[in-house]
Order: sequence, then C-alpha cells, then structure tokens
Amino acid sequence: MKRIGMLTSGGDCQALNAAMRGVVKSLYNSGEELEIFGFLSGYKGLINSDFRMLTGADFTGILTKGGTILGSSRVPFKTIDEPDEKGRNKIECMKHTYYKLGLDCLVVLGGNGSHKTANRLRTEGLNVITLPKTIDNDLWGTDMTFGFQSAVDIATDVIDCIHTTADSHGRVFIVEIMGHKTGWLTLNAGMASGADIILIPEIPYNMKSIISAIKKREARGSKFTILAVAEGAISDEDSKLSKKEYQKKLEKLKTPSVSYEVAQAISEQTGLEVRVTVPGHMQRGGSPCPYDRVFASRLGAEAGKLILKGEYGFMVGYKDREIVKVPLKDVAGKLKTVAPDATIIKEARMLGISFGDEQV
Amino acid sequence: MKRIGMLTSGGDCQALNAAMRGVVKSLYNSGEELEIFGFLSGYKGLINSDFRMLTGADFTGILTKGGTILGSSRVPFKTIDEPDEKGRNKIECMKHTYYKLGLDCLVVLGGNGSHKTANRLRTEGLNVITLPKTIDNDLWGTDMTFGFQSAVDIATDVIDCIHTTADSHGRVFIVEIMGHKTGWLTLNAGMASGADIILIPEIPYNMKSIISAIKKREARGSKFTILAVAEGAISDEDSKLSKKEYQKKLEKLKTPSVSYEVAQAISEQTGLEVRVTVPGHMQRGGSPCPYDRVFASRLGAEAGKLILKGEYGFMVGYKDREIVKVPLKDVAGKLKTVAPDATIIKEARMLGISFGDEQV
Amino acid sequence: MKRIGMLTSGGDCQALNAAMRGVVKSLYNSGEELEIFGFLSGYKGLINSDFRMLTGADFTGILTKGGTILGSSRVPFKTIDEPDEKGRNKIECMKHTYYKLGLDCLVVLGGNGSHKTANRLRTEGLNVITLPKTIDNDLWGTDMTFGFQSAVDIATDVIDCIHTTADSHGRVFIVEIMGHKTGWLTLNAGMASGADIILIPEIPYNMKSIISAIKKREARGSKFTILAVAEGAISDEDSKLSKKEYQKKLEKLKTPSVSYEVAQAISEQTGLEVRVTVPGHMQRGGSPCPYDRVFASRLGAEAGKLILKGEYGFMVGYKDREIVKVPLKDVAGKLKTVAPDATIIKEARMLGISFGDEQV
Amino acid sequence: MKRIGMLTSGGDCQALNAAMRGVVKSLYNSGEELEIFGFLSGYKGLINSDFRMLTGADFTGILTKGGTILGSSRVPFKTIDEPDEKGRNKIECMKHTYYKLGLDCLVVLGGNGSHKTANRLRTEGLNVITLPKTIDNDLWGTDMTFGFQSAVDIATDVIDCIHTTADSHGRVFIVEIMGHKTGWLTLNAGMASGADIILIPEIPYNMKSIISAIKKREARGSKFTILAVAEGAISDEDSKLSKKEYQKKLEKLKTPSVSYEVAQAISEQTGLEVRVTVPGHMQRGGSPCPYDRVFASRLGAEAGKLILKGEYGFMVGYKDREIVKVPLKDVAGKLKTVAPDATIIKEARMLGISFGDEQV
Repeated sequence: MKRIGMLTSGGDCQALNAAMRGVVKSLYNSGEELEIFGFLSGYKGLINSDFRMLTGADFTGILTKGGTILGSSRVPFKTIDEPDEKGRNKIECMKHTYYKLGLDCLVVLGGNGSHKTANRLRTEGLNVITLPKTIDNDLWGTDMTFGFQSAVDIATDVIDCIHTTADSHGRVFIVEIMGHKTGWLTLNAGMASGADIILIPEIPYNMKSIISAIKKREARGSKFTILAVAEGAISDEDSKLSKKEYQKKLEKLKTPSVSYEVAQAISEQTGLEVRVTVPGHMQRGGSPCPYDRVFASRLGAEAGKLILKGEYGFMVGYKDREIVKVPLKDVAGKLKTVAPDATIIKEARMLGISFGDEQV
Repeated sequence: MKRIGMLTSGGDCQALNAAMRGVVKSLYNSGEELEIFGFLSGYKGLINSDFRMLTGADFTGILTKGGTILGSSRVPFKTIDEPDEKGRNKIECMKHTYYKLGLDCLVVLGGNGSHKTANRLRTEGLNVITLPKTIDNDLWGTDMTFGFQSAVDIATDVIDCIHTTADSHGRVFIVEIMGHKTGWLTLNAGMASGADIILIPEIPYNMKSIISAIKKREARGSKFTILAVAEGAISDEDSKLSKKEYQKKLEKLKTPSVSYEVAQAISEQTGLEVRVTVPGHMQRGGSPCPYDRVFASRLGAEAGKLILKGEYGFMVGYKDREIVKVPLKDVAGKLKTVAPDATIIKEARMLGISFGDEQV
Repeated sequence: MKRIGMLTSGGDCQALNAAMRGVVKSLYNSGEELEIFGFLSGYKGLINSDFRMLTGADFTGILTKGGTILGSSRVPFKTIDEPDEKGRNKIECMKHTYYKLGLDCLVVLGGNGSHKTANRLRTEGLNVITLPKTIDNDLWGTDMTFGFQSAVDIATDVIDCIHTTADSHGRVFIVEIMGHKTGWLTLNAGMASGADIILIPEIPYNMKSIISAIKKREARGSKFTILAVAEGAISDEDSKLSKKEYQKKLEKLKTPSVSYEVAQAISEQTGLEVRVTVPGHMQRGGSPCPYDRVFASRLGAEAGKLILKGEYGFMVGYKDREIVKVPLKDVAGKLKTVAPDATIIKEARMLGISFGDEQV
Repeated sequence: MKRIGMLTSGGDCQALNAAMRGVVKSLYNSGEELEIFGFLSGYKGLINSDFRMLTGADFTGILTKGGTILGSSRVPFKTIDEPDEKGRNKIECMKHTYYKLGLDCLVVLGGNGSHKTANRLRTEGLNVITLPKTIDNDLWGTDMTFGFQSAVDIATDVIDCIHTTADSHGRVFIVEIMGHKTGWLTLNAGMASGADIILIPEIPYNMKSIISAIKKREARGSKFTILAVAEGAISDEDSKLSKKEYQKKLEKLKTPSVSYEVAQAISEQTGLEVRVTVPGHMQRGGSPCPYDRVFASRLGAEAGKLILKGEYGFMVGYKDREIVKVPLKDVAGKLKTVAPDATIIKEARMLGISFGDEQV
C-alpha cells in the first residue's frame, strides 16, 4: 500500500489533470493499493493540511479538462522560511502534514518556483517526485514542459485572428505573449503565425532596428506589420541596468506593460496606427492540446513507475525523445532560456523574421 | 451588362469576403455580363478612384477567408463634407468616380457610420445597395448582422479558457468584450460561457450590486467570479453625465478602460485578486463561423437579385427568418440596442446572471 | 416545493446539459424548493423507476459539456404499448413511476419520436414540458432546435478539411452528413463550406444532373467537385417507390449507404476518382457551440417559468426570434422539412449550387 | 542565380505550403537571385514539363493554408521505369525536363514512395533535396514528419466528439484512423483522446483480448468502450499469412475495412451495439497546427541553406531536437515503425490501454 500526496502549484496550465491522471492510472494498473491525498490550492494545502481523499473515479474523464481539480496557488519560495499568517513556520507545517499522514511520497506538479520548494522538501528528508508544468517551457533539465504546446496553440490562434484584420486595415499590431523571463512561447507562436518581428527577453531590442524592419516591409509593399512581444521583452539600453534599477523604471511606466511602450514609440516614429492585444490568462486555459495530453500522460505514467520502485528526489523530464529522471537538486533554481544564437533563432532570421536587434 | 462598384468600409469583420462572393456569384450565375470595380480601403478608394478590376476568379476560395480582399478604412461621416487632405470635397469626389466609371450601382458593406454615408450617396442620386456588416449587431432594420456570431464564438472561447484558470485559482476575472455603444456581443458571449456578471452599455451598473453579487457567490462556496464587460459599460452615476462630461472623465482615467476601473474597485472593496483580459481586435478576425458564412452568402445572393431588378436604395437585412430589403433612409443614423427589459435579459436574470444593477 | 422528473431521450446531441442546467437554475433562482429526479437512459429510466436525485451542484460546470449527464436511449414510440422485456406495459410503468414519486411534472428533452411519447403521456394525464433537441432541426413548431448549429459547425469543419485535399488532388469528394428524413443539416453545412452539389431527402436527385454539374465545373477549369450528401438522399426514381419497396432496395445495397452508390455511379460515368468520408456520430458530439449554449439556456429558463406557473402540455420552442410555448398535441408526429422551393434553396441555386435535380 | 524546381508528391498533408514557403523565404533572404519552377501535380509535372514560374509573392500568406499550391498526385515508384500513357520513359522525361530547364536542383516534398523516386533521380545524377511530408510519421531517418501532428489533432478531435456520445449512450465505438503500415497516428490520437483499446499494424490483435478488455471495463462499471483502430490493423492469425494471401483475404471482405470486421465480431460476441466512424481524408486537410507550421518552416529554411551551399542528395530531417541532413540513399525504401516494446507502448499499457494482444 502506498500513501501518495499530490499537489499542483503556481500558475495553472493545461494538462495538469492529464498528468495527475497518468500517475494515478499507472499506480492503480500496477495492482498497488493506494491512498491518495489531494492537497488543495498548492503548497497551501500541504501547509494547512487541507486535502481531499481521492480515488480512481476522481481521475476519470479529466484527461481533456483544463485547469486542476486540486486548485493551485503561489507560495513564493523566498517566503517559505517565514512564518505564515498564523505565525507558523511553513516548511515545518509541510513536514508535519507529510509525517502526520504517513505519506510515502509527495508528487508536485509545478514550474520554477515550485521546484525550488520541492527540492527544499527533499533536503528536509521528504520523498518527492515532480512533474514539469509550465507554459513557459523554461524548466532546466527537460526539453519540454506540459502546457507549453497548448499555450503556443492559443497564442498562435490569437495572432492568426489579428492577421486578417491587419491585412485588411494596414496597421501595426502588437500581440503581447506571456513570458517574463524566457521567450520560448513568443518565439514559437510568432514563427507559427508568421509574425514579422519577435521580441523576447533573451535578445534585447533597439527601436531603430524595429523601425527599420517596419519600413523595409513598407518599402516592399506590405501594408502591415505584426509584432509578437514577450511580456519580458527588454530594450538593449534597459538590459544594461541593474535588476533593481530596471524594476524601478518599470514601476514608473504610465502604460500597463513594455508592449505599450513599444507601441507608443512605433506610433511616434512612423506615424502609423498601432494596436495592442493582450490575450493574458487565456493562454493558460482551456483543454490541453493532443500533444500535451500524450506528453503529460507519459510523464505521469513514468512518475508512477518511479514511485513503485521507490526512486525519489527526481523530476520526470524529457530528453532527446526519451522520458528521463532528473535529480531535483540539478533542476532547482535554474532556468532554460533561449540562446540568442540557437539554431531555431538562426532559422527564424533566415525566414526574414526580425528580433529587433539587427544592425541598421 | 452591369458595372458594379463594391467597397468594404469601417472596422473589418468576418464574412465580408463571403458576402461579396455571394453578390458576385449570384450575378454571374444569372448570366449577366459584369464589370466589377473593387474600391480599395473603403470609401477612400471611391474618393481617390483607387480600385482593382475583379473577376469571378477573385471570389473563388474566399468564402472561408477572414478580413476583406478589398481592404477597409474609416472615413467618418462627420467629415465627408469637409475637404480631404488634397483639398477636394469628398462627396463630390465619390460622385465623380461613380459617374466617371459609369457605374450602375455601388455595393457597400458596412456598419453604422458607413450606412450614413451610403444613405447620403443615395440622396445624391447614386444607386446604392448595402449589406449589414458588424460584430456589434447594432444595425437598425435587421435582426442580425454578419460578423456577430463569429465574434461571439471567439469571445466565448476566450471566456471558456479563462474559466479553467478561474476555477483553479479562485480569483475574479474580467474579460473586456468589444462594444462601445451596444451590448449584444457581451451579452451573448457572457451567456454562452457562463459568465456570472455581465455589464453592458444599455444597463448602467453600480459597484454595490457587483460587490454584492461576488459576495453571494462566495457565500455559496464559489471560489471565483467571471465578469464579461463591454468596452462601453457605464456606471449609473456616469450615465447621468452629459456625453461631453463623460468623455472628459474617460480621458482622465489612469487605466486603459472602464474594465480596469471596475477591476480596481472590486479589488479595493473585496481584497480579492482581479485579472483583466483584453482580446481586442482578435474578435474581428479569423475565418467566419459557419452561421456567418451561410448568412452572408444569402444576403449577398439577395443583393445580386436586387441589382438585377434595378431596385436600389436598400440595405439587405434579415427579419423574422426572412431576407428583406430595408430602405436606406430608415436605417441610417439609428442604433439597435439591447432593451433593458428584453426577454433575453429577463431569461439571463432567471439563470442567475447579474447585470450589476440589482437592488442590494 | 416542486418535484421535477427529467429525462433525455433519443440520440444525444450538444447542449442537452446546457438546457437542463437552464431549467434547474431558473427554478432554483426563483426561490422555489426543488426535488429533482433524473431518470437514467431516457424513457427506460422512467419505465424502470431508475433515477438519481439531483441538486444544483450536479448542474454546475455542465454548460459547455457535450452529451447528457443522464444518459439516453431510444424507446421507439411504436413499441410503448407493447410489453417490455419483463412483460410489463411500458406506458403503465411510466405512469406508475410518475405517481409513485409524486411528481409535479416531467421535463423531456427529445426529438421527433420522443415528442410522440411525451404527448401520449400528456393524454394519459401527466404534466409534461418538452424541449426541442435534435441536430436535424426537423421538429415542427419551432424555427430552431438545439444541437443543430453545433452539428452544422462540425460537418462544416469536415468539409473544410476535405476542401484542401480536393483542391490539391483534383478528385470528387463526397461527405455524408447526418439526416435520414430532412436536409437542414446537409443544406447548411454544404452552403457554409462551399460544397458544389448538395443532395437532400426533400429534393430527389438524378444522376444525369449530377454528372452534368461535375462536367460543367471541369469545363470551367475546376479540378474538383465536393458533394454534401444527406444520409437520406434519394434518387427521383427511388422516390417513386413505395416506402416498403424502397426499404427493400436499401437492404440489398452492397455498399453501406446511398453516398457510396452515388460515388460508384459518378466514378463509372466520369472515370474520376471519388472518395467518401463519413463523419458519423462525430456530428452529435463535443462541446455545444456558443449559439446552442445561449439558445438551450434560454429555452431551459422559459421551461422553468412554465413549471412555476403550472402551465403544462407544451414544448418550449422558438418562433420569429421569440421563445414560445407550443401545444404538444400540435408538435407530435409532424416533421419540419425543407420546402424544395424555400427561399434558402433558391438562394443556394443563385450561388451556383446544384441540388442534382436540374434539367439537363 | 539559382534555378530551383519544386514539387509535392503523394497524398497531400498539412504544412506542405509552409515548408515550401520556408525554402523560398530563406533563399530570397540570403540575397540569392532565384528562378522557381513549380511542377504541377507531383512528379507528373516533372514528367510532362508542366510547371508555373513562381515568385516570392506566391508564397505570401500560405503559411497557414492547407493542401499544396502545386497540386499533388501519386506516381508509384514501381512504374517509373515503365512507359507513361504517351509511351515515353518516365525517368527519362523527368531528366529531360530537369536538364532542359537548366535546374540547379529539385526540391521534393514527399513520403515513402516519393523518396524512392527522389533517390532514383539522385542516382541518375540530379541534385535533389527532400522534405519529409506525411501524416504517418513513418519516414526513416527523422524523428518527425510534418503533417503528423496536425493529423493527430484532427483524429483526436474526432474521438473527443465520439466520447461524449459514447458516454451518453453506452455503446462500443470504433474510430478508424489513417495508417496502412504504421500506427504512429492511431497510437498518439488514441492516447490523446483516452481511447480504451488501440489497434495498430505493428501489434497484431486477437479478438479474445479485445472482448476481454471490453468485459473488464463493463465489470468496472464503464458503460462504453472506445477503440482507435488503424486502417492497417491486423489480427494475429492474419499476420501469419503471406502478403499475397492476406491481400486476397482483404479483397473478399464484405465490409469496407478491417474496422468493420472488428465491429462485427464485437457485436456478435458481446451483443453490444457497435458504431464505426471513418474520418478518412479529413485527417490530411485543413490548416496546419502551430507545431507543424514551425517545424515545416524550420525544415524549409535548412533546405534553403543546403541549396545555397550546394549540398545535395539529402533529406532534411529531425533528430534529437536538431535539424539534420540525412543521405537520401539511407532513407529510401525504409519504414520507421512503432516497436511493439517501445517505451511509449509500455507507458500506454501502464495507463490501462489495451493493444488487443494481452494474454487472457
């Protein structure tokens, strides 16, 4: 008999349910007897010992369901050694819940921040297995995270829709894509939808290059230009600021985000009409795409296998088309970013896409 | 032989191409010989005599294509008696182009503003036929406009996606839906997606009712609330201001739109996290939905019939499930709004939807 | 306090859950106390007194869910006076269940057959309210049924996909659309997707016209032809047979359906490659489209209102854009078919669509 | 200056246009001057010197367009040394066209058969570059082919729709998925949609296992079972026949395909209602999914690079997340099949999926 705790942490994304279903199905099908404790609202549920007992029936029909049946929340890693609102030490509360319930292991579905906490729990002696969840695809140690392809599909669909309007009206359109630190989502959605200019955090832009790219298009007879801009896009000037200085600058913006700043600059320097679209949280929602369903199910199945073998302390990841186990200590605190000279970036440039950093 | 001028005016929407294809196919299939002048970028093309000669081949394969093959632009009705940038009287230019090309008639696909101009051209002696294009469904004289159902589909899809995140995180989400003057789109997308609160221009809201509706949901155990808010939503206080005063107030807003104001008020008064999503121009784009394709094709076919009969001065509309012709003079300058006591509003209330105007 | 029985009968379709949610939400929101008996698998549940007690929670989150939470089955009207497998009279069993549970009324969601049974129960003294459910849109007394527009969307999507292959390969493609007795679905999906030839039960076809339409397209340079064929399409010769004779003929077919017969004839008479696609039950499935969600919710709300007023013996229908109540006795046993000279048929012909009945 | 010939061969699929756009864009952006000869209808166009001169404008706006702007056809490899209908040797005709037009190279987008011909042309001295096009993902030398993920998306959508009906009616549903020789598509669509039983050519099934799997589901309270069956699924008995014997047996089938045979056997042995859905060519059509658009664009860009360098005789493939060049001689005539003991198969079994081959 295995007592499994499970929680989903951080911003939700597609295929969380599919992944949990994978874990549970593979354990049940092994013949193992199970007690499943579903902690509610992420690490908060573990801290507060707030959970629901789950059975196989809870995981039926959720393969295609967006969101998470357990709820989620953010408990910033920085704060986990600070007392919670009731004055209790959070890490101690989590350990207390774990031992009180006699858990064999804890399965955590989360992104970067959640992996830091998961690794910390591991160092505290808990048996932890994690699954790489994020639309940002920025987890170190895995080629892919679930949620990513579903978010690409949605963001692409948004730009596709904008494309027909852009074509009819001849304006500049900016679509702001999620991604504060990494540009995987913006890059892929931008390439998939034929965006003309793609701005990502890893490649600082300068307005001169952007204006030049727009004017080149005009000179070739194109009436419109579409920019896919990551939330975390940054100008080359700003990229030289310290993190603190930049944060201050951001707070002083009169517009809601960098996209609006870029929009204003283009409008002022070209006289063209510029429109900004912000699909926002839509990108995390809805039914997972088939790719993510298969991928999350596979990761879940392999997590079940590790649990059966008692191999803990790993993230189940994906490397060179194989499902692999990656030591949690190697994952925590690292970010997988887009290398500015990655092959895919070169290919995008070959296709005529500007990253706003070209010499003018 | 018929010489037909055609133009698409105002914000673009889905099924413009389908409608034009309908006109042209029905004329060709009647055996009539045709010369089709496609004016580029709306009335601008007519003013500047900027057009492309079109043949049947140009209308092949465009039934499912978003946008408009002719391009569009806004030429505000207010300004059509003022000289254009070259100092020429716009109305006179339009007449000049019409007569110079020896047109038998002009087919205009447009919304409210475009209908005013179309009617003016009629009074100036031109043969005009119009087709009701707008995602707002606010044209007087027709039960339905093309573009509307496609926009409902997109806006609904956005709220559907937000739903899964809302459910997982337990926050308040606001989705800002297009519609400055009328609430048809917000009302339908809100009902289709199970929004809890719907704010439309025709039913001024007060924050007390909104807060009360959110609290009632909390009291019943619902962790989240979703608001579908029309761009033109207005508080009951503001609705008492003169148009001018309100315009001034809007300009002083620190946030981009009323949705953000509502968000801030909810956040302050409830302490809940509130997120705003703005799908924006996405709502006008992409391939038309099957409903709009059939509808626009039918309208186009009937427009062709009127042209063959030489019956001009009409908008082709839809009444009680029949395609009808509506005199342009009756359409121009009127708006079809949502009556606050319409049956559909009552039904929405019966389903538990709040319009932010309930007595508290 | 109201005791409501509810059941979904016949082939399932989209928006059944949305409609039931509408009924229940409007009753709860009226403040009425409720006991809801959900009969399982259609009339079978009523016959066998097989039900689940339902509460508001059962109807939460099902607005967008395909299928029916109650299950469905077909109990042919012809057989309801015959004993069931246990030798019991079915009608008496249904009445027994109704009275034993002390129901105030029975809400039936169903199509043609189900309405006959519903009307019979009314004549037996039961309080019955029905809702028009069918992808065929063939119920008499209502302009629209829920499920229809969702099925149009799916069937259109199938033909859209086929279109790109047809265009690339230059063949004849037949897509078989659901509809044994009426052609609404085929007609609308065919028009929405730009099908070249549409065959529906109401307009018998002859092969000569079909071949001629294909050859005309070839002569004009079109490499492919797409036919949307209703399951119940019939040749003019066969339409002269008695129902019995035709049934016999159908049973002797070596191919699975009339579509395949048409395919074979085209292939033999033109030498062209012909491919048949049969989306089948796919057309009844998946999440309801936004139109159906709004429509079914409105019907449900109005059904709730009738129940509160104690007005029974009606189908809640839709006429000239208003929700109306239609006496069950007027609905039962009638079919709403496509009139061969309906305006929409004329418009389709104006657009160049062949119905396979043109004089050659 | 480069003279490029291009053709798309075999069954069409999604992202053919995206791939060609990639090749052409990367060549133009390199500053190279170009003459592009687009051969019509696959190798037929090369044989008959039937082509269109293409420019950059022809590749604008086609990233999202299904099908192929060049048309396609099958010219079986077996027959290319036989004379064509005009008595000419096909290979010689192809060479003649190539040399007559003074081509620098020929870009072929095709699947298995097309690669054999491409390799043959290489041995005849032509400069050939190929791109891996097929919804089957069965090309040797590449982890992925474009078209595959788009087809998975469509096939999954079909099964998703069937799922809601299956759930409501409690029957057995069979969805026949494309794939005569390999099961990649069926496997992925089946896993993505939660199919209960998956039959693929690489794992022969026996009816006993299938019946047992269905009965186990019944015993656990599941009312329905969904089978995803590849066109080329084969029973263990039949898999022992010679290819010829099996072909004979297939021709004698009274039903259109193996799926119907399985359906009949299930129906006879369990008494359950079984329904078959055949999405057919739909699976090759429609707009490519975002994954395929990015992937095909990248492959196209790299093909452009090889052309610039004059490196010929390769297929541009994908290995371990890198774009690679694979010698054509290594690709031709080989098939990439699903290994019955592949990790993904084991994972699928861990999730409870039956492949119809389990010991009973």
